[in-house]
Amino acid sequence: MSMRHYLGGKPLTRFDDALEKLLNAVQPITRVETVVLTEAVNRVLAETVTAPFDVPPFNRAAMDGYALRASDIAEASPENPVGLKLIGSVYAGETPMCTFVEGSCVQVATGAPVPEGADCVVPIEDTERDGEVVRILKAFPPNANITEKGADVRQGNVVLTDGDLLTPAKVGILAALGLDKVKVYAKPKVAILPTGNEIAKPGTQLRTGQIYDVNTYTIAALANQHGCEPLPMDIVPDEPEALKQALDEAMRVADCIVFSAGSAVGERDLLPNLLNERGTVLFHGLAVRPGRPTLAAVVDGKIVVNLPGFPTSCLMMAMVLLVPIWRKMARLPEWQPKTVAAKLAHDVRSPEGLKQFLTVRLKRRDEGRGTGDEEFFAESAYKESGTITSLSEADGFVIIPEEVTSLPVGIMVTVTLL
Amino acid sequence: MSMRHYLGGKPLTRFDDALEKLLNAVQPITRVETVVLTEAVNRVLAETVTAPFDVPPFNRAAMDGYALRASDIAEASPENPVGLKLIGSVYAGETPMCTFVEGSCVQVATGAPVPEGADCVVPIEDTERDGEVVRILKAFPPNANITEKGADVRQGNVVLTDGDLLTPAKVGILAALGLDKVKVYAKPKVAILPTGNEIAKPGTQLRTGQIYDVNTYTIAALANQHGCEPLPMDIVPDEPEALKQALDEAMRVADCIVFSAGSAVGERDLLPNLLNERGTVLFHGLAVRPGRPTLAAVVDGKIVVNLPGFPTSCLMMAMVLLVPIWRKMARLPEWQPKTVAAKLAHDVRSPEGLKQFLTVRLKRRDEGRGTGDEEFFAESAYKESGTITSLSEADGFVIIPEEVTSLPVGIMVTVTLL
Repeated sequence: MSMRHYLGGKPLTRFDDALEKLLNAVQPITRVETVVLTEAVNRVLAETVTAPFDVPPFNRAAMDGYALRASDIAEASPENPVGLKLIGSVYAGETPMCTFVEGSCVQVATGAPVPEGADCVVPIEDTERDGEVVRILKAFPPNANITEKGADVRQGNVVLTDGDLLTPAKVGILAALGLDKVKVYAKPKVAILPTGNEIAKPGTQLRTGQIYDVNTYTIAALANQHGCEPLPMDIVPDEPEALKQALDEAMRVADCIVFSAGSAVGERDLLPNLLNERGTVLFHGLAVRPGRPTLAAVVDGKIVVNLPGFPTSCLMMAMVLLVPIWRKMARLPEWQPKTVAAKLAHDVRSPEGLKQFLTVRLKRRDEGRGTGDEEFFAESAYKESGTITSLSEADGFVIIPEEVTSLPVGIMVTVTLL
Repeated sequence: MSMRHYLGGKPLTRFDDALEKLLNAVQPITRVETVVLTEAVNRVLAETVTAPFDVPPFNRAAMDGYALRASDIAEASPENPVGLKLIGSVYAGETPMCTFVEGSCVQVATGAPVPEGADCVVPIEDTERDGEVVRILKAFPPNANITEKGADVRQGNVVLTDGDLLTPAKVGILAALGLDKVKVYAKPKVAILPTGNEIAKPGTQLRTGQIYDVNTYTIAALANQHGCEPLPMDIVPDEPEALKQALDEAMRVADCIVFSAGSAVGERDLLPNLLNERGTVLFHGLAVRPGRPTLAAVVDGKIVVNLPGFPTSCLMMAMVLLVPIWRKMARLPEWQPKTVAAKLAHDVRSPEGLKQFLTVRLKRRDEGRGTGDEEFFAESAYKESGTITSLSEADGFVIIPEEVTSLPVGIMVTVTLL
């Protein structure tokens, strides 16, 4: 039997249900753009790439040595070297100028094309040179020390697929195919709209009763980290007309719209009403701490979220609720934050029926057993949701499920690192 | 008794020794720059930040409700409500215009300044309003539902320290202090110089005997991922004068210089000679596979590395050898790549005396025990170091120590994910 919590008389939505609703409502982005290869890393490929030619495009020497026919040196050994006539040389980047004939050899550098007719490269260490004669001291089979034409990629093969995340190695395969530009999915644009008459932009002078806008900067930073392009917008005053105009403008330019503040149930909570009018509200009021007033709606197919104005509530909800939907929009793989196991440094109480995201600091302690083993202790870093230092001074957070009302000192918890 | 390996007659350097030499030779960057706050995430702070004022700068209502004196309602209960005269209201962002007097109350919205003289906010749910009289139904102690001036940050406190990595939350605390710009350490500039006459720039036409430059793009992508600014430079032909000029130019513009190719011991291996002349060679020839020809030197205090030309050798060495030094230069915390445990899918042999970095693909297999447990199998993705697909088609790599010469099928290995 779990306790029910309410916002403005309506029961709160469970966190997992809210996240599922959001994930169901959001679509991966379909807009594409072309970027130069030096800016392609961490982007998501928006085309399937087929090799237009073999890589390498010719049989290539894999060692410095002599190109020859394997059958000519089948009996070679240090005691019984095989002498071959040196008829030319090919460095990397050169076209073989000599016509290869049996019983001869051509000096080749690593990376050089192996002359037509030769089928083997003998490393320089296994040879002795005497003027125009090279003595081969060891037998090698056909294809030895040759990277065959197409060994890396065969013409016509699919090398990368639509939706692939471009790692450095995958950028490399694009370069190997001679591509200097590539089609990728656009980064979802996230409009960020701070609301409230009490909010001032950093860099300006505070008036009495004002505080600086924090949420625009934390949300923008987070969006940046998760493959989105943040679009910080002007501070919106708590006026119906201003909110409407700001929403219209954001809908024009962005794929996802994030308001901060304005959603507690007070006299001036205009945004919930506006979103109810303009679209479908997915949830309003979450059974979480912090972050209870969080609201999400779908307006003309776009997710519009109203995060709490309190900085720690706002950023925490952005991390656990928006990052998954941003990454789905951006076609990035699910985020798997780093975690560490730690012992709770003190008892923790948690309200029944609410999922708590408790920010913690980690203290390291070497067990002193000379084993190098370390233990982490987690202690609450939470002051209140109105403070940004609840998060900025934390190392991570512990998720306490709805049904857990207390955790004793010493219990092992999983800390999701920030 | 470990087998010794050689390059050009000289014994190879062990990987761990090479990495230590590099880490000892490299200095954290001291150059700083100023960035706007919206571009500060993931950067390293280059100043210590002290709060110039209290945050919040006034006592702030943490709930929608009524500001009053706690002593006036000490006896309040639903059965015995205390009626107070409503003398005004303050919304967030406003300056309280009324003068608070005992026995009265002022309506306040969340975030509004609490009028001087009031010491408690009673939530609207615990009140009843009747015209100009508000009946308080519950007693609250002093400071209830008020975020005190300075509760988040006290004036004069150090909030962030030189060297802090700017996470979204730490960006938030800078915003809370009204800072719209911040001093950060410059990203180390990494010049990337492809060398070799066989190399052509992607986007251009290949001539016979040429292949496309892969390494510039993989190294640049990797540098981007680890807090550096890559400076891709023109392809340098294998000519002494051209190499000298390229090195001079790179020394002028970069903090770290990475050549690729040109360091196998062949006739045109001009770069090792040049670096020997111009600086101190730290090592030339590593006891690793792939990556044996790797060379590093210090020239005028800057690290100059010559990575092998073969794409997989080059990128693998960049990942294991350059990432640690780049991160030290950039003042970023040590890289802790994700790993998974996997069973080897087949026997693996490894040359004695060489540290092998074996690229592998992971196959997932549900154990089918209905537990949801999954097992990973690792199978070699390695073709040869001359192919980029040895890495681009891999999910990660397994490090096989120098003294291990074989690993049997089924043994558990740690796979470092790409």
